[in-house]
Amino acid sequence: MEALSKAKSKLVQNLSKKKFRDQNARFIVEGKKLVQEALDYNSEIVDFLVQTPENAFANSKVTRFLTNQKDFQSLSSLVTPDGILAVCHKPSPKLQIEKYNKIIAINSLNDPGNLGTIIRTADWFAADAIILGPGSVDCFNSKVVQATMGSIFRVPVIYVEDFDSFIQDIKHAQFQTIGLSLQASTHVPTKKQSKLALVLGSESHGLSPKTQALLDINYKIAGNPAVESLNLSIAAAIAMHQFFN
Amino acid sequence: MEALSKAKSKLVQNLSKKKFRDQNARFIVEGKKLVQEALDYNSEIVDFLVQTPENAFANSKVTRFLTNQKDFQSLSSLVTPDGILAVCHKPSPKLQIEKYNKIIAINSLNDPGNLGTIIRTADWFAADAIILGPGSVDCFNSKVVQATMGSIFRVPVIYVEDFDSFIQDIKHAQFQTIGLSLQASTHVPTKKQSKLALVLGSESHGLSPKTQALLDINYKIAGNPAVESLNLSIAAAIAMHQFFN
Repeated sequence: MEALSKAKSKLVQNLSKKKFRDQNARFIVEGKKLVQEALDYNSEIVDFLVQTPENAFANSKVTRFLTNQKDFQSLSSLVTPDGILAVCHKPSPKLQIEKYNKIIAINSLNDPGNLGTIIRTADWFAADAIILGPGSVDCFNSKVVQATMGSIFRVPVIYVEDFDSFIQDIKHAQFQTIGLSLQASTHVPTKKQSKLALVLGSESHGLSPKTQALLDINYKIAGNPAVESLNLSIAAAIAMHQFFN
Repeated sequence: MEALSKAKSKLVQNLSKKKFRDQNARFIVEGKKLVQEALDYNSEIVDFLVQTPENAFANSKVTRFLTNQKDFQSLSSLVTPDGILAVCHKPSPKLQIEKYNKIIAINSLNDPGNLGTIIRTADWFAADAIILGPGSVDCFNSKVVQATMGSIFRVPVIYVEDFDSFIQDIKHAQFQTIGLSLQASTHVPTKKQSKLALVLGSESHGLSPKTQALLDINYKIAGNPAVESLNLSIAAAIAMHQFFN
């Protein structure tokens, strides 16, 4: 196994920045379990592995580079790195509204942990795609990738430039659109169409009145009126469980 | 307003450690919004506030100490502190099984973000208490407190030494016990009793077969069989929505 070159080491470090992930069309997957998920999903997605001597995968088909523990630490975003990471080719899924039946659309999502959890939950409920509006966090950010627990390989995340236009497009494509809003009624909407989109707002501002007006229905998850809100990934999960099952 | 003394400053710093929180029976609440929640909830819970000159609450009844931004930074656990924190008296709720109707019990919970989110969600669904088994993270850890968004003041979190004995105690007290398990059937149990306990295992190991055998029923949230698991706080939220509403 070849030693990791300075150039490759620099590439790995740069991939912590979105700009470089976009330019290089690559992203990083860390830890034995997630690297195994990447290889199981499709070993062609893996460009190369970086490993410490303690963590060499014995019979892997992919290119591997060796580094010592100290240098590995400088490449890792984890507090306790386990000595293996994969540089993967970044997929760039296209929006295919006509092929979807269950989607979740969020006008702006800032927290990487929330996005990772939503991707993992969307995978559990077999959603076809997650659509994110402008200003949302990059799904190939390392915190997002870690929180997905491998679902990043299975659920397409697509960024749209104009969220309200996207909502109009899916309505034309016969989607029922259900928004989650803290201002709406707690009356649970009935699923009426086979194609369904759950629509959520940002962590801090929710859906704009303009977006809400475009939707077939807005509703609020019933709860204790003394409590201000639910975490966004929790609200999304409850809605997916209710409508995507 | 008095300047923050070295002794008080040291106390605040020490409160980042569980041992000191237990010894001093105090914990820290950070940020304008959460400090306001503490004051609104019960200003007597607040021992004192620490503020930078930019962030003085004008007419507060509680004792306040002034510090500069640089020193404040050294007291804060936040990446971008907003110049206000409260040292609060730590409540120590007692287990009162006979008074509860809806509880959530987790045999071991390690992730502070998960616990914070579960406390916030339990507040939304008006749960009476959260019971945690040995080895669980401290609910007054700053990451937990931040993630609760104020629900830490409203939902009692109680630690038990023997989780299986606790399960037996609630069964004697006429609770229906519903466990969440990835090995169980996806058949959704029927709520049969007015007193209900949702029981979950740890993030990595789930419920032990021994605990599962004690429960009235175990079930699995239906989903895509290709996906290994849901995040613990997500599974708890879906179950609370299903049974506590």
